[in-house]
Amino acid sequence: MKWLRCRDSGADTWGWIEGDEAVLVDGSPFGEYRANGRRLPLASLEWLAPCQPGKMLALWNNFAASAAKNGWTKPAEPLWFLKSPNSFAAHQQPIPLPSGYDGRVAYEGELAIIISRRTRAIDASQAKASILGYSCANDVTAIELLQRDPSFPQWSRAKGFDGFGVFGPVIDTDFDPAAGNVKTTVDGRERQNYPLSDMFFSPEELVARLSHDVTLEAGDVILCGTSLGVLPMKPGAKVEVTIEGIGTLSNVYGVAAG
Amino acid sequence: MKWLRCRDSGADTWGWIEGDEAVLVDGSPFGEYRANGRRLPLASLEWLAPCQPGKMLALWNNFAASAAKNGWTKPAEPLWFLKSPNSFAAHQQPIPLPSGYDGRVAYEGELAIIISRRTRAIDASQAKASILGYSCANDVTAIELLQRDPSFPQWSRAKGFDGFGVFGPVIDTDFDPAAGNVKTTVDGRERQNYPLSDMFFSPEELVARLSHDVTLEAGDVILCGTSLGVLPMKPGAKVEVTIEGIGTLSNVYGVAAG
Repeated sequence: MKWLRCRDSGADTWGWIEGDEAVLVDGSPFGEYRANGRRLPLASLEWLAPCQPGKMLALWNNFAASAAKNGWTKPAEPLWFLKSPNSFAAHQQPIPLPSGYDGRVAYEGELAIIISRRTRAIDASQAKASILGYSCANDVTAIELLQRDPSFPQWSRAKGFDGFGVFGPVIDTDFDPAAGNVKTTVDGRERQNYPLSDMFFSPEELVARLSHDVTLEAGDVILCGTSLGVLPMKPGAKVEVTIEGIGTLSNVYGVAAG
Repeated sequence: MKWLRCRDSGADTWGWIEGDEAVLVDGSPFGEYRANGRRLPLASLEWLAPCQPGKMLALWNNFAASAAKNGWTKPAEPLWFLKSPNSFAAHQQPIPLPSGYDGRVAYEGELAIIISRRTRAIDASQAKASILGYSCANDVTAIELLQRDPSFPQWSRAKGFDGFGVFGPVIDTDFDPAAGNVKTTVDGRERQNYPLSDMFFSPEELVARLSHDVTLEAGDVILCGTSLGVLPMKPGAKVEVTIEGIGTLSNVYGVAAG
């Protein structure tokens, strides 16, 4: 099942995909829901982010190929930071140029885990029930900010500008991450294409371990980290993150902040 | 005016302090409000955090005395990280022992800025109107986690455990930070006592500069960083952060996570 959120006559509403239409529901996938009889064509849908996270945790150094290339080793535990709520943004929403930074900005195509329910201090064997499904994400990064101050790496700031936490278009509840791969294209040209099986910590391990650090809530998002092929974007670039089985997250970078 | 939030007959409600009572209101200080006729004695109040932040940004290395002692220099720009929403907690609420960490945990007494309205890319001269008021905070920190992995300082994790972002008891709308000081006691013994005039970046500068990084929203909180005197807490310790003019934030550390 592919869950989405969209605008319908001025209201935010949930739905799922059937063919080329969105079947709208009353309720949400986190609780009770039922089809309310309304359907909208996907082609003209006004997409919203597929859920409203209270928090978004994002992984660093979670792929073996990327670690090998950069001279990193597998960390003893998942290494994560928080992205700002104002960074959360949707499929087809422009990624604005930051107002307080004029350096290079890079895409990072990633798998996003969507949490289904309040989860605290569980084992990996229990994690499946805490995962509603998976989505595509672009963990946009102001790369020159990250290490600009040698005394304090600025993870939350460099990755927290408004619109820098894009995810969508849908939450797929049937996706199996073990067999998936993440492909990122810029203006149609392939830049990333890496297998999810290369993760140091699998999605279920991540959910379990992070649930010992903070209580996870329904709708929270964990970004699994990225692998090889990260490059800066030019203003006007169209960046698409595709995970076969989930869909394609498409955004244009470089619209001035409002 | 000293704003608070509390439980009243099972509902969360706003109020202000008058003498030894809370005058309850319909509405909130972020919009319209008026006294609804109910009053509760402060002595038996069930305190809530004085607002519900969408995000909490926290400063590192923002006091000259602390920098001098630790061999740090004044940073070229404010250095901040995000605290997890599940860390937000109230006056008199116990600070739980983390479930996934058994190392030392330190208090950090701090001044908290409460944002009054959506604020984006402003100058310091405009910041006053974006500050609803000030509160006391304890930026609780799992100190052995911070630098445990030499490749990635874990700021959001070490400071993001459930209950590690305590603030309150009130939002004081008349407090002048220029003349204030922060005092922290542990079981009645003074451990921190530092002037707010020693900040590298004043509250108005912080609000202005951070508003270029992320859009600030009504109810968001900025913790101004701490100064000298940070020490680990023993389970059972009562930690009190007092800012004269605002009040005393009091919490006991060391209750097992639920």
